[in-house]
Amino acid sequence: MTRLLQRFGQGHLRLGRIEAFSDGVFAIIVTLLVLELHVPELHSAGSVAELGEGLWHLLPKFLSWLISFIIVCKFWLNHHHILSLASHADYGMVWLNSIFLMFQSFVPFPTALMGEYPGNPLAVSLFGVVMAFNTVLFIALQSWILHRLCKPELAAARDPHLLAKSLAGPLGYLAGAGLAWVSLPLGFICYALTPLLFITPPEPRNSE
Amino acid sequence: MTRLLQRFGQGHLRLGRIEAFSDGVFAIIVTLLVLELHVPELHSAGSVAELGEGLWHLLPKFLSWLISFIIVCKFWLNHHHILSLASHADYGMVWLNSIFLMFQSFVPFPTALMGEYPGNPLAVSLFGVVMAFNTVLFIALQSWILHRLCKPELAAARDPHLLAKSLAGPLGYLAGAGLAWVSLPLGFICYALTPLLFITPPEPRNSE
Amino acid sequence: MTRLLQRFGQGHLRLGRIEAFSDGVFAIIVTLLVLELHVPELHSAGSVAELGEGLWHLLPKFLSWLISFIIVCKFWLNHHHILSLASHADYGMVWLNSIFLMFQSFVPFPTALMGEYPGNPLAVSLFGVVMAFNTVLFIALQSWILHRLCKPELAAARDPHLLAKSLAGPLGYLAGAGLAWVSLPLGFICYALTPLLFITPPEPRNSE
Amino acid sequence: MTRLLQRFGQGHLRLGRIEAFSDGVFAIIVTLLVLELHVPELHSAGSVAELGEGLWHLLPKFLSWLISFIIVCKFWLNHHHILSLASHADYGMVWLNSIFLMFQSFVPFPTALMGEYPGNPLAVSLFGVVMAFNTVLFIALQSWILHRLCKPELAAARDPHLLAKSLAGPLGYLAGAGLAWVSLPLGFICYALTPLLFITPPEPRNSE
Repeated sequence: MTRLLQRFGQGHLRLGRIEAFSDGVFAIIVTLLVLELHVPELHSAGSVAELGEGLWHLLPKFLSWLISFIIVCKFWLNHHHILSLASHADYGMVWLNSIFLMFQSFVPFPTALMGEYPGNPLAVSLFGVVMAFNTVLFIALQSWILHRLCKPELAAARDPHLLAKSLAGPLGYLAGAGLAWVSLPLGFICYALTPLLFITPPEPRNSE
Repeated sequence: MTRLLQRFGQGHLRLGRIEAFSDGVFAIIVTLLVLELHVPELHSAGSVAELGEGLWHLLPKFLSWLISFIIVCKFWLNHHHILSLASHADYGMVWLNSIFLMFQSFVPFPTALMGEYPGNPLAVSLFGVVMAFNTVLFIALQSWILHRLCKPELAAARDPHLLAKSLAGPLGYLAGAGLAWVSLPLGFICYALTPLLFITPPEPRNSE
Repeated sequence: MTRLLQRFGQGHLRLGRIEAFSDGVFAIIVTLLVLELHVPELHSAGSVAELGEGLWHLLPKFLSWLISFIIVCKFWLNHHHILSLASHADYGMVWLNSIFLMFQSFVPFPTALMGEYPGNPLAVSLFGVVMAFNTVLFIALQSWILHRLCKPELAAARDPHLLAKSLAGPLGYLAGAGLAWVSLPLGFICYALTPLLFITPPEPRNSE
Repeated sequence: MTRLLQRFGQGHLRLGRIEAFSDGVFAIIVTLLVLELHVPELHSAGSVAELGEGLWHLLPKFLSWLISFIIVCKFWLNHHHILSLASHADYGMVWLNSIFLMFQSFVPFPTALMGEYPGNPLAVSLFGVVMAFNTVLFIALQSWILHRLCKPELAAARDPHLLAKSLAGPLGYLAGAGLAWVSLPLGFICYALTPLLFITPPEPRNSE
């Protein structure tokens, strides 16, 4: 076990390619989200009323797309921030990053599910569970970088309460997942508000 | 409110990753546009006449694809230009950029809608409204960069009438959206001509 | 007209972002090609014989995918080569590059068409026409770079017969497009052989 | 033949663009894998039980997605490692890299096949054959780089048994492909365990 941890602590990888790979994955995720918005099928191709109604029925999909886009962009921004603190990368970080990206790339599935069945509590709460899990994976990546790879000149400015603050994310999403079983609109609102907590990465301690 | 604006004014992000993320999104958008071109289904797989007719019916989709491709490339070029004026990035810029990219990545949807229902005024005018909105988002990003993040050596060369000139874009698209209710071909022509106004980014004032 | 040409001759863009955007488009095109390979539908999910037959029927799609992949990689390599000769980029180059990429991103459509209807001469010859047109667009980009943007130290090594040699590409694809009407296998072979002519970019004159 | 090999030995390409293109392809592959997870169709949109059952039936697809994601990330990491050893690139390397990426981009197809027909030995064993072939292509790329393009200062640290060790990869996948005909779960387990052998790239000899 120690040997495995040691093995993951090895390697001195260039951050540039890790960022390029991650940016590619983030860019594709946000762009794929729109593929769930299918053009409505009309019986009469020229009918304005029918098309208007078809677009109106897409509203839950539009909202799901909007929420997911904001959440993924928030992850991208915080990912950008946390990688800028690292002096280099080791294999442990690469794998934590890969697993984090794996579940980021999973986001279009619960988004489509929630957009397709906005009235189904299981579909709506699954969205929150996936987002909570993603945030936990991000916190794991963040902890690995802060404790093992942090640039020495930035170590002093580290916020000791960062972990506690970060946990507000998964708790917010899980609250939304729970609320969905009581009231679907409350679940939606909870999902829309949670990413706003992390709309900007935390500032270093001494600047507050 | 001031505190929120202050928070968005913080951060000192590397432009490189923002450009990489944006380039990824632009590249995927333009490439996804072609996915709307489905191979026509034939009753007789070897029939040249039937395939020719099937391709002919794809013409509105080809035209929509062409116009959208040119528009997105134009946005990419102007995005490239405006980011080259910035000395660094703050959180406000990152979020304006993300929201701009969000609605860029939305472009395949109205493109598909217009390609599928070229005879439906609502479908055609929606395309113009989305493009006008995209241009407004671009103008917001441009203003933020010019007023807050502009490299000092470039500030003097700024065109004071840039905002007024930029508004020609949304007005052109909205004119097309309005014309579509009167005459569909006029709407199409308006959409095809508007991006030509911005085919090259504005030159700095002193070179004109 | 001169004024328009002058406008396209302006601008001094960073090659890095043009390459990043182009690499993104190339990477997505080659990866999207595989989406045309659909899992065959089976009546009996566990039947080895039925699945074997289903995969066998995919053979024309596999071959189309293979040929298109090699052709797009060849374009990528020659694009890489020609951009390495440029000292900077102007708006003319950016637009020639964008239009070239537009028709590169179109490649999945004729590839799918040829894979779906390998016995239809129109489908097969369309593939050749699109590839010939792509090569012509590449030659236009190449000429613009060589005549206007070439690094001075590389100008002397330019091959004066490059244009004539490059035309072998469109002629090969058009020959395949013509042959398809006589014999489909001959057309296929012609398509497979033509990219091999350009499997490596031309060496500078003095090294031959 | 010698002349052809000589031609492939020419060229002095920038590694940066090859990495950017490769990263783009890797990023798209891992993200496309999720597109195979389709939202289950429900008769009653609000039924929790029906949705739960639909998700349960997706389990083989989830597992296929998970295994493929880990395998492609492992390839990415080893690709990153091996390219960091190269001092420059020649045409031979570019083509070996392109052919390697071609079959990487093919991965979503056998993944979808195995996810759709987890009870079909042909579908499951095909997955192993494709992965074995991918590893062989990677070994070819690795050998070309180590023997022709290796940075001189790293040549001494090369592991003489690297080739033998690398062959464990294809053998593991082929074992899984063979086992699938005897017992499907054994095949799955073999596929899941093989990438773990290469979860970190080999360390240089002197550090062991």
